[in-house]
Amino acid sequence: MKPRRERHGLVIVNTGDGKGKTTAALGVLFRAWGRDFRVRMFQFIKHTGARFGEQRAAERLGIRIEALGDGFTWLSKDMDRTTALAVEQWGRCREAILQGDDDIIILDEFTYAMHYGWVSVDEVIDTLKQRPRTLHVIITGRYAPQELIDFADLVTEMRMVKHPYETQGIKAQQGIEF
Amino acid sequence: MKPRRERHGLVIVNTGDGKGKTTAALGVLFRAWGRDFRVRMFQFIKHTGARFGEQRAAERLGIRIEALGDGFTWLSKDMDRTTALAVEQWGRCREAILQGDDDIIILDEFTYAMHYGWVSVDEVIDTLKQRPRTLHVIITGRYAPQELIDFADLVTEMRMVKHPYETQGIKAQQGIEF
Repeated sequence: MKPRRERHGLVIVNTGDGKGKTTAALGVLFRAWGRDFRVRMFQFIKHTGARFGEQRAAERLGIRIEALGDGFTWLSKDMDRTTALAVEQWGRCREAILQGDDDIIILDEFTYAMHYGWVSVDEVIDTLKQRPRTLHVIITGRYAPQELIDFADLVTEMRMVKHPYETQGIKAQQGIEF
Repeated sequence: MKPRRERHGLVIVNTGDGKGKTTAALGVLFRAWGRDFRVRMFQFIKHTGARFGEQRAAERLGIRIEALGDGFTWLSKDMDRTTALAVEQWGRCREAILQGDDDIIILDEFTYAMHYGWVSVDEVIDTLKQRPRTLHVIITGRYAPQELIDFADLVTEMRMVKHPYETQGIKAQQGIEF
């Protein structure tokens, strides 16, 4: 492993309407774990205590994936609660980012919190500016705010070309999508 | 885990010029491992015996990632060897796909072999048609042939919006990109 001082921490954004935003972040987590990096993932939106494939795998490997959310969708009724959970989760992220104990921190589906105005983009960028210079931060989700894209080092748009739900009515499947 | 008979095996393609094609496939591998799926990854192009983060992680978890290649680039001199290795690797993939022992098979950077005509797209599609119906196959790499896109169930284009090498001259870093 390269000495930390030689590393240049990046702000990475995976956005767009296609698959692979969270999944690519999980791939980084897997790869980084293989190099003994300290990786931590905070999940927004997803239900607290979710038991998807990634949580199961992470648990076995001793990687911390912390989900705090109520499964927000367009049909959510209790927006106060959704907002409060996002704000609370961002507080935890902020602390971890400033603490500097980790090599990579992933904020999964965090773009929505900024997009819907639950968390201020300015505050996020301000926090990212204060992070240890070797820390990589990965943010995923649709609708990444333009200011965040402007600030980030590496931005990829995952674009849906073809999806089996659209073409064949096949729903998300275990192991592949969650 | 859902009974295999209820699963609908997908052909998934991650293509485009952006980051995240291989990384998202690794994310699926990680997630699927968390659900006790049998996953196997064949890497094309990458040097045989490569020791990147993903190989290190996979080894620890008992997941098979098999690289067979000579690190092909635009500057490669021995194209016969590059071609022969790709053909040999495809032979192994074909066998694994038809055998049906796995739940997910990943053919990493396999698009190049088809794009450059080392392996026939028709033969690949023909093999995919003969696979067990519950088997998911993920193919990654730039320049996915149109016939493959037409045949696939789920296609995502990873589009580069911003890359630190372009904007800041920062090269690929351990744990993040390999």
